[in-house]
Amino acid sequence: MRILVANVNTTVSMTDAIAESARGVASPGTEIVGITPRFGADSCEGNFESYLAAIAVMDAITSYPDPFDAVIQAGYGEHGREGLQELLDVPVVDITEAAASTAMYLGHKYSVVTTLDRTVPLIEDRLKLAGLDARCASVRASGLGVLELESDPDRAVEAIVRQAREAVENDHAEVICLGCGGMAELEEKVKAATGVPIVDGVRSAVTIAEGLVRMGLSTSKVRTYATPREKKVIGWPFQL
Amino acid sequence: MRILVANVNTTVSMTDAIAESARGVASPGTEIVGITPRFGADSCEGNFESYLAAIAVMDAITSYPDPFDAVIQAGYGEHGREGLQELLDVPVVDITEAAASTAMYLGHKYSVVTTLDRTVPLIEDRLKLAGLDARCASVRASGLGVLELESDPDRAVEAIVRQAREAVENDHAEVICLGCGGMAELEEKVKAATGVPIVDGVRSAVTIAEGLVRMGLSTSKVRTYATPREKKVIGWPFQL
Amino acid sequence: MRILVANVNTTVSMTDAIAESARGVASPGTEIVGITPRFGADSCEGNFESYLAAIAVMDAITSYPDPFDAVIQAGYGEHGREGLQELLDVPVVDITEAAASTAMYLGHKYSVVTTLDRTVPLIEDRLKLAGLDARCASVRASGLGVLELESDPDRAVEAIVRQAREAVENDHAEVICLGCGGMAELEEKVKAATGVPIVDGVRSAVTIAEGLVRMGLSTSKVRTYATPREKKVIGWPFQL
Amino acid sequence: MRILVANVNTTVSMTDAIAESARGVASPGTEIVGITPRFGADSCEGNFESYLAAIAVMDAITSYPDPFDAVIQAGYGEHGREGLQELLDVPVVDITEAAASTAMYLGHKYSVVTTLDRTVPLIEDRLKLAGLDARCASVRASGLGVLELESDPDRAVEAIVRQAREAVENDHAEVICLGCGGMAELEEKVKAATGVPIVDGVRSAVTIAEGLVRMGLSTSKVRTYATPREKKVIGWPFQL
Amino acid sequence: MRILVANVNTTVSMTDAIAESARGVASPGTEIVGITPRFGADSCEGNFESYLAAIAVMDAITSYPDPFDAVIQAGYGEHGREGLQELLDVPVVDITEAAASTAMYLGHKYSVVTTLDRTVPLIEDRLKLAGLDARCASVRASGLGVLELESDPDRAVEAIVRQAREAVENDHAEVICLGCGGMAELEEKVKAATGVPIVDGVRSAVTIAEGLVRMGLSTSKVRTYATPREKKVIGWPFQL
Amino acid sequence: MRILVANVNTTVSMTDAIAESARGVASPGTEIVGITPRFGADSCEGNFESYLAAIAVMDAITSYPDPFDAVIQAGYGEHGREGLQELLDVPVVDITEAAASTAMYLGHKYSVVTTLDRTVPLIEDRLKLAGLDARCASVRASGLGVLELESDPDRAVEAIVRQAREAVENDHAEVICLGCGGMAELEEKVKAATGVPIVDGVRSAVTIAEGLVRMGLSTSKVRTYATPREKKVIGWPFQL
Repeated sequence: MRILVANVNTTVSMTDAIAESARGVASPGTEIVGITPRFGADSCEGNFESYLAAIAVMDAITSYPDPFDAVIQAGYGEHGREGLQELLDVPVVDITEAAASTAMYLGHKYSVVTTLDRTVPLIEDRLKLAGLDARCASVRASGLGVLELESDPDRAVEAIVRQAREAVENDHAEVICLGCGGMAELEEKVKAATGVPIVDGVRSAVTIAEGLVRMGLSTSKVRTYATPREKKVIGWPFQL
Repeated sequence: MRILVANVNTTVSMTDAIAESARGVASPGTEIVGITPRFGADSCEGNFESYLAAIAVMDAITSYPDPFDAVIQAGYGEHGREGLQELLDVPVVDITEAAASTAMYLGHKYSVVTTLDRTVPLIEDRLKLAGLDARCASVRASGLGVLELESDPDRAVEAIVRQAREAVENDHAEVICLGCGGMAELEEKVKAATGVPIVDGVRSAVTIAEGLVRMGLSTSKVRTYATPREKKVIGWPFQL
Repeated sequence: MRILVANVNTTVSMTDAIAESARGVASPGTEIVGITPRFGADSCEGNFESYLAAIAVMDAITSYPDPFDAVIQAGYGEHGREGLQELLDVPVVDITEAAASTAMYLGHKYSVVTTLDRTVPLIEDRLKLAGLDARCASVRASGLGVLELESDPDRAVEAIVRQAREAVENDHAEVICLGCGGMAELEEKVKAATGVPIVDGVRSAVTIAEGLVRMGLSTSKVRTYATPREKKVIGWPFQL
Repeated sequence: MRILVANVNTTVSMTDAIAESARGVASPGTEIVGITPRFGADSCEGNFESYLAAIAVMDAITSYPDPFDAVIQAGYGEHGREGLQELLDVPVVDITEAAASTAMYLGHKYSVVTTLDRTVPLIEDRLKLAGLDARCASVRASGLGVLELESDPDRAVEAIVRQAREAVENDHAEVICLGCGGMAELEEKVKAATGVPIVDGVRSAVTIAEGLVRMGLSTSKVRTYATPREKKVIGWPFQL
Repeated sequence: MRILVANVNTTVSMTDAIAESARGVASPGTEIVGITPRFGADSCEGNFESYLAAIAVMDAITSYPDPFDAVIQAGYGEHGREGLQELLDVPVVDITEAAASTAMYLGHKYSVVTTLDRTVPLIEDRLKLAGLDARCASVRASGLGVLELESDPDRAVEAIVRQAREAVENDHAEVICLGCGGMAELEEKVKAATGVPIVDGVRSAVTIAEGLVRMGLSTSKVRTYATPREKKVIGWPFQL
Repeated sequence: MRILVANVNTTVSMTDAIAESARGVASPGTEIVGITPRFGADSCEGNFESYLAAIAVMDAITSYPDPFDAVIQAGYGEHGREGLQELLDVPVVDITEAAASTAMYLGHKYSVVTTLDRTVPLIEDRLKLAGLDARCASVRASGLGVLELESDPDRAVEAIVRQAREAVENDHAEVICLGCGGMAELEEKVKAATGVPIVDGVRSAVTIAEGLVRMGLSTSKVRTYATPREKKVIGWPFQL
């Protein structure tokens, strides 16, 4: 099966890293294709950039020329998953939700450690909408921007470990979700330093998407995610 | 003061009707400017169209050449308000929230009567995110599409009144919110038929926006709605 | 239009200050009338005093000899708004709710800074009943009694600023509501010291009440706030 | 021990019936004293009447000349319990809460059947504030006024049984609370007709109040229910 | 009346202490019978031990040879109460719930102070299921195991008082529940040290169980707690 | 990898059917081993039977002689998963939760259709504890007992389809979970009749368990699910 893994920002090296991480847990026979949007911010750290990414991901996915079996939206706390679900017949898995639902099998409460403080409310809101917030102990910010994760991985590990430890000690988290699409390679180091299970959203999403495909399940089309009605839409598909 | 009232779809006659309705409650000295997006669907009835509208409204508002004091996003249950709040220094009022917060001053519980059944979950989600859902008795669909409200107002009144009555009798609503930007002109008829206060989101938003401006209040910039960081954004502002 | 602004305590200088503050945001043509109850405590700082004030405000408002268009109950976290809604045909706006609904247009979460610690649960309860608590980050006490705000404004500013800062830094509030009817004059200083929007309940209530009147909206009479049934009521109206 | 059972309305025959019912479950050695307010409505069926009753009960209880060990506020869904708790050192038990906490020992979910539809929201609000609403399946109205329960008991039983049956069949209630101070004598007939446990608030409150006294427990005075501060209170105690 | 008080662990001295404490608040004429399970852990401090205790208590209670009027399950945060309710016709009272419902009559919020940190989530879960968590300020662990309470009471008091004080000062608890079946004898010392009401679950359960029996109330059999259907059950009753 | 799939009842044919269904979605290389408890009811339809099953499953799993990589508890709405998590180092997946978390990727709201009405509250409680209830539209009973599913599959399909349709039409479910371990073979027929995705808990659990194993994740041992402390446990392991 082929799974498209859509980065939400326009940084190609990040797409590559995400896809590589996804391949690490994919089953034999699963092809992972990394998708980079044609437009948008080089990192998503707020609502404007996230809304732009929502449309850019829909643009990129619907432009993909070949068949595919599932889509992973690899942005943590980002807008747009519901739009993809309307446009596609294959399952769509958001990594924020994938990490949360995975973490809930591993401990009584989980926390998310993300990048900047300003993205915390976006993640909280996505978890609330997804109905996956009841066992979320906290969403904590490491204070590092998305691109700093790549440029200074040692500092990233240190900052994330600090927050992860506080989440375990003060917020009673028993599992930590890495709250950014590009954090997967830090997983081992954070696990070693904290002693609790560390969940990466992209990897979790791969296993969930594969499971849905294997079970022959896809998005319900009876109401919320029905295909858009036929109507006049100016400027779409985008001509850039 | 000048308030921009942004329609979320590309139907100009609807923009005009919304602006006209807004003017009906604006204070002397308040200029209402109707804004129509440059791209997007001629009616918004789902997540894809709503996400596209979110960006289209941001595009239209940030392209507006003159100063303004507040923005009203005149789409019911639509995405995007948070992005506008980041991009602007003036207050932004979403009509879904304006109708709800107004209704809560008028009765113990309120219901929303909207257009198509598929838009009900969008409205429920926006109210949940806004934290204005605790006293929402129900969100009900009339079964009519957005553009049918304009083309067949008599049928629209009949369908809305039917749902409003059920909301009052079965769901214990004491106030009804008209759940679409283009329903304001139906207000009087629905009120006469149901005997409960009928709240229009656009009109409510005008009074709230004026109040915020008069009090010198605008969006907090300390965290969630801080101005986007300087970064590379491909394709923005949009070149269509 | 004429708006009655009812102080909940019997301190006339406080009524005057509240009315003066209300006038500062009232539209041209709006007459603000300050109302002082005939009985009750000189400051309301608990349930007994608040219940007494509830009846005293109803007594004072229903004794007012001239017509009026709206009533503001200018006590933070006090009982009684529902009774006024039953007795009157004009809109009634409680300042606890007005501050909260206003703050929710300005930031992702808000906090309230009030007077004594013992009044915190009253405010929390009113926000819970009003369904406006989901985005309330915290209710914090400055430790100063109601009348100390007037008698020692410098100390009041200092104490409120300290709690406001903690609310922003620790509780993630992005907006601060001043949790007492008599705090309006402190607004500017608290704003300067914290850098976040400061919301005053009385001023907010004036804009909301004006908006309701302008839209021709008033309390729904179909159920909860229906006019009391005809019955024998001993001792009412009060003969003091 | 002596327990004061305060009727919330001024109908003495109802006070007598309530006290008589309370005596039916009181332990040997417990003296039940029925208290009728000096002012207020002859039946409480709404917020205005309930707020007046709140003060009238405080007036009556604080005027009681002899020592007592506990107070029961025998109004269903009424205001005022928190004020009594501040004014007194002995335990105060509200029958709305007593019925709910008792019902929760008997079934997975309970419903309340009360008098008029307009009192339903008052009961819902008291249960929400008390944090006893999570297992409340519904609050239903029989459509009979408080005084009609006394004047036409057969019709009362019939109306209450009808709602109780619907609560069991449609709302999945497993226990029914009689939602009015004056319904205790209907208990047996409603039980016979529905086959589920029927809980009376006054009787429940007697057993709870006795238990608290026996355990030497009373209201915590550290914060919410601390004794009111010394201050100037005009018109209290009431001179009628 | 006869009330069976079931210890959840197999330590007979603890059964004796629990029963003795129960007798301290029982009415004249109430016989308290302590029950020790035939199998299970000598202290319950986790889910495995608690599930085993659930079955062991059902085994012990259903093996009891004489008639009885009510059962108290004297384990804090333990599984099993629902099973007893199905198997018996008399009322069953869980001490976790008894302490919580009692505490809610005494203050605005309560906290629980229990033994080990690992038992905190069990208590939180039981309170959530019981719908008695809305006013729970916190569940705190003293860090002492169940059997250490008996072996080193001075250290137990000190550790519990420390957590109780933090609950009052930081979590705004106004009442403390002793979160273990065997803590009753510490009650007086903890009360003296903290100044707030201290609630013991076993004592509370005795007063509640007596009240239910006196009112002639028992578990509803219409749905959740109906008697188990006739069927083939291997290995039950247990042959040990 | 080897996954143990534990039936909660003692009906071997049902264990076989469950295991067979599990094999249908297992990856190549995954061995599914069906486990039947040594004691307990031949069908679990209530709390007593479920608590007994909880211990019986722990008994059976800890008696399994060979290594294994994950455990699936194949009972819908049953007790015990937390105990297994304490006793084991490999991941444990409960099918109630697996079905729910899978359904949440497929539609805005899901419903569960189970067997007898009396098991509905058990399922509701497990979903609430798991924090997976926010998007659960309803739990509905087909009215058929667990063993009737096997003995009369046509009637089972008819009864389940009826409830599934009502869930979609009245409760706004967009996905249906089959609320019993033994319903998997009905999946296709229910899907054909309703047009919405049908989720089977056992199959979902297989994909989730495989995913956890592939990612190297297992239960956090830092708090709630830590290995039981060393202590004296009478009668365990069970000698039957």
